[in-house]
Amino acid sequence: MSTPKILILGAGYGGLLTTLQLQKKLNYNEADVTLVNKHSYHYLTTWLHEPAAGTSSADRARVYLDEIIDRDKINLVKGTVVSIQPKEQTVTLESGEVLSYDYLVIGLGSEPETFGIEGLKEHAFSIRSINSVRMIREHIEYMFSKSKNEPGRTDYLTFVVGGAGFTGIEFCGELGDRIPELCREFDVDPEQVKVYCIEAAPTALPGFDPELVQYAVEVLEKKGIQFKIGTPIKQCTADGVVLANGEEIKSKTVIWAAGVRGNSIVEKSGFEVVRGRVKVDEYLRAPGYENVFVVGDCALIFNEQGRPYPPTAQIAVQEGETLGDNLVAIVRGELPQKFVPHLQGTLASLGKGEGIGQVGSKKLFGPTAALMKKASDLRYLHKIGGIGLALKKVKL
Amino acid sequence: MSTPKILILGAGYGGLLTTLQLQKKLNYNEADVTLVNKHSYHYLTTWLHEPAAGTSSADRARVYLDEIIDRDKINLVKGTVVSIQPKEQTVTLESGEVLSYDYLVIGLGSEPETFGIEGLKEHAFSIRSINSVRMIREHIEYMFSKSKNEPGRTDYLTFVVGGAGFTGIEFCGELGDRIPELCREFDVDPEQVKVYCIEAAPTALPGFDPELVQYAVEVLEKKGIQFKIGTPIKQCTADGVVLANGEEIKSKTVIWAAGVRGNSIVEKSGFEVVRGRVKVDEYLRAPGYENVFVVGDCALIFNEQGRPYPPTAQIAVQEGETLGDNLVAIVRGELPQKFVPHLQGTLASLGKGEGIGQVGSKKLFGPTAALMKKASDLRYLHKIGGIGLALKKVKL
Repeated sequence: MSTPKILILGAGYGGLLTTLQLQKKLNYNEADVTLVNKHSYHYLTTWLHEPAAGTSSADRARVYLDEIIDRDKINLVKGTVVSIQPKEQTVTLESGEVLSYDYLVIGLGSEPETFGIEGLKEHAFSIRSINSVRMIREHIEYMFSKSKNEPGRTDYLTFVVGGAGFTGIEFCGELGDRIPELCREFDVDPEQVKVYCIEAAPTALPGFDPELVQYAVEVLEKKGIQFKIGTPIKQCTADGVVLANGEEIKSKTVIWAAGVRGNSIVEKSGFEVVRGRVKVDEYLRAPGYENVFVVGDCALIFNEQGRPYPPTAQIAVQEGETLGDNLVAIVRGELPQKFVPHLQGTLASLGKGEGIGQVGSKKLFGPTAALMKKASDLRYLHKIGGIGLALKKVKL
Repeated sequence: MSTPKILILGAGYGGLLTTLQLQKKLNYNEADVTLVNKHSYHYLTTWLHEPAAGTSSADRARVYLDEIIDRDKINLVKGTVVSIQPKEQTVTLESGEVLSYDYLVIGLGSEPETFGIEGLKEHAFSIRSINSVRMIREHIEYMFSKSKNEPGRTDYLTFVVGGAGFTGIEFCGELGDRIPELCREFDVDPEQVKVYCIEAAPTALPGFDPELVQYAVEVLEKKGIQFKIGTPIKQCTADGVVLANGEEIKSKTVIWAAGVRGNSIVEKSGFEVVRGRVKVDEYLRAPGYENVFVVGDCALIFNEQGRPYPPTAQIAVQEGETLGDNLVAIVRGELPQKFVPHLQGTLASLGKGEGIGQVGSKKLFGPTAALMKKASDLRYLHKIGGIGLALKKVKL
């Protein structure tokens, strides 16, 4: 019998944790494991709001795969997946290379969900990768520099954040910290800078406890963020946004942070999806395929009340770990376990030393929440790269 | 008899040195001296190629006037001059304020000379102020960040420097040093980056010794700069440049460094000008006015062979010092001296540790020239702000 081939697509939270679990638990030659990733690094999507605003460097938010992957156990392929042929058990890369598998793990992440809003795709930025956040950071700095050369233009110093969900709020927290620095660097009067956080839902941070939401909004308002809640964006143009109420905001910088959908490659490859996400079974299998597993933002799972879990790093990590264990079991002819998420709470940062959180029934505010968030980041880095990586990356 | 009013427009090399000389030599109440400047700082135009490329910070290239001007002796007015009425002996500022004078010093600096080339004014950057170089730096970084989000676009990583004169060459030297850093920061393959230095004249650095020119070109070519000499630019568009030979270069970054003309306010105010520069007499007076003096890039003076001196910081500084002394003499009813420039040599930097220079009949190359240039920068800073300023600003 030949060695089973396990192919993992994507080194995000789900794909990476699957890989690391296999690296840890499989003996040499039990399986032939290949990890395909677009970049030579893994990045911490939940940190990207910091380099996007410029409050930390993009390098801090990434970990080179060579630092954490043992190439004696795992084949690393740098490449971009263009399609999956589940019936042929193959995957095609942009380079033309075709990889075959016995077991496939899809961890291809997400794309911005624009809800069909005109012009967003063309004109808005989104916080989605190391490359995209470096561009956002540079764009913001460029706008500050331009404003000094064309006095009177308000659009250069007006920033629109679309969405007051998790990403939008965390980004606003960082931007609120960053703007005073930029004003000093570029000799800009802080009064000239406007940041609008625009949310279609009737509240910021939908799903969060109202007391925490209120706290978050107050912290951000003190940093100069202006909220427009219950206000859908109708259109985005090269000159700014038009709101459903007819109001126009002139801005050269619209950052869309109002939700994600699964990677479109999954749908294009013939898998059945809801908003790009595959409704997996309790073993994280794609319907109709015993040997195709989906983790992270491409996987759709439901709680006991039949409501979908939001795509979070926390769940992706747990999926990866369970799936890694299950693949080891399958390779050894043992039985896999069902995947059950264990929600350990939610923490949102609101900039330096500020945050909110819900851990069980406990609500956390301010520095306590910020500290808990750091602890959680440390835990994750320790998990993937040991204490050395944790100490190198966490900003204390 | 009332105290004579001396009004100095512009705190560039010429205006600042005039002011400092008056500050040093005039007794209290001998004259009422006012310096009008657009910014609260003086900047070192000859350093601007560094912050433009991003090899040093813009802050290093400026000196706050409050650090060097004694407000007990000099009135500082932050304002933008819009017109001069020499017959009325008044100057109007953008704010609407009107200042009157007995003696006027025009040191309003230069504007880019575009030689009527279509599209340059709209689409090209120029290295002319703290604000403009911060924009160039940010623009370049933004282009690097964008290139990673739209692979295949060559225009983002193609940079065109128009002019291989002093500024163009010095900027290319810095850009050559900066690009490898940017490639590392943004994960860009250095092979993808192109820098073209395009010059209409039949040689780079016209007027320099051919051996020095050759040395400079070789140093810059090693840093990846591609020269197109004897090649006029016909047109600049939002997409790049079109050369006179029909060749098109697609680039989102065209930096025009091929010459300057005097500030257009001078011509608009009715002074007779050649390329915006006033042909002053040997006492630096504007024709027709005994009490209007012109220094720096707005002044046109000729050598013994009847050829105009190029507008340099070196001459502007000497003009300022002589004029300061002359104004003291005039206020005291003494005789002014004629202005005679003393050329102390020319030094051009070619990036870190590299340069060329001509001091008398001596040619300087490489680190020697770079060191001489530092020494000359130190001397200037010492002159305007003492040893403390010199040590604070010079990058060793």
